[in-house]
Amino acid sequence: MTIRPAKKDDVVAIVEMIANDKLGMLREIFKIPLPDSYYEAFHNIASDPNQELVVLENESQIVIGTLQLSFIQYLTYQGGIRAQIEAVRIHEEHRGKGIGQRLFKWAIARAKEKRAHVVQLTTDKKRPEALHFYEKLGFKATHAGMKLHLP
Amino acid sequence: MTIRPAKKDDVVAIVEMIANDKLGMLREIFKIPLPDSYYEAFHNIASDPNQELVVLENESQIVIGTLQLSFIQYLTYQGGIRAQIEAVRIHEEHRGKGIGQRLFKWAIARAKEKRAHVVQLTTDKKRPEALHFYEKLGFKATHAGMKLHLP
Repeated sequence: MTIRPAKKDDVVAIVEMIANDKLGMLREIFKIPLPDSYYEAFHNIASDPNQELVVLENESQIVIGTLQLSFIQYLTYQGGIRAQIEAVRIHEEHRGKGIGQRLFKWAIARAKEKRAHVVQLTTDKKRPEALHFYEKLGFKATHAGMKLHLP
Repeated sequence: MTIRPAKKDDVVAIVEMIANDKLGMLREIFKIPLPDSYYEAFHNIASDPNQELVVLENESQIVIGTLQLSFIQYLTYQGGIRAQIEAVRIHEEHRGKGIGQRLFKWAIARAKEKRAHVVQLTTDKKRPEALHFYEKLGFKATHAGMKLHLP
């Protein structure tokens, strides 16, 4: 298995995974061709040195996982950098095989390499199984994750 | 009162505020001259078009509030942008006067202007009064905020 930066050609496979989920299906549009907004977003992500959108490929070079890692510079923590993980998905046919864990271990190692002092994420309370998965990796739910959706 | 982008000359006032707090005092170093790491962080923030570190000045041009607003592009939500708020402080002598609310209303308006679909933040469970403040502004604690501190 390989973890590598996502290319434009991977966008369809990534969106298929993020849409194939009880929450994702309510907010994504997965149809071919994909809405342009996904490609515009990909362009913005790929051209930002603080964003790393990656895919995990299996032995047959098929994309079966993805996550986005963002490095955010703050003044807090003596001018520290935080690594933030979002948009994590493993293809439904490949869950429960330790692939998610592998992807996370890569992300944590990458965060150390970039000298981040913390890796952070928020997880929807509608996914209690995800909370468990993150706790096993060492994450602690010390914070409330608050959202204000805009019209 | 004025809300404006932070300048290098504001870094001392900002760090004084972020250090003057029950959690901040455990992780910041506020001494003059400030450690270089704060100025390096300021430079990175100020040169990133997706970061907006702002200060709120009172009528005497004294900095009495700050927050950092980050715009993060994702593929999720059809290629949506999220606005994330971090490093919020109001000078201790000026709390309880609606200044924090004013700063937040500015941030929410700015997020709309940049077409973000959500404003998000995490708040330490050790600050229950902050959770209340955010709920009054319309934020909902739908997520767990998870952290993994790196050695």
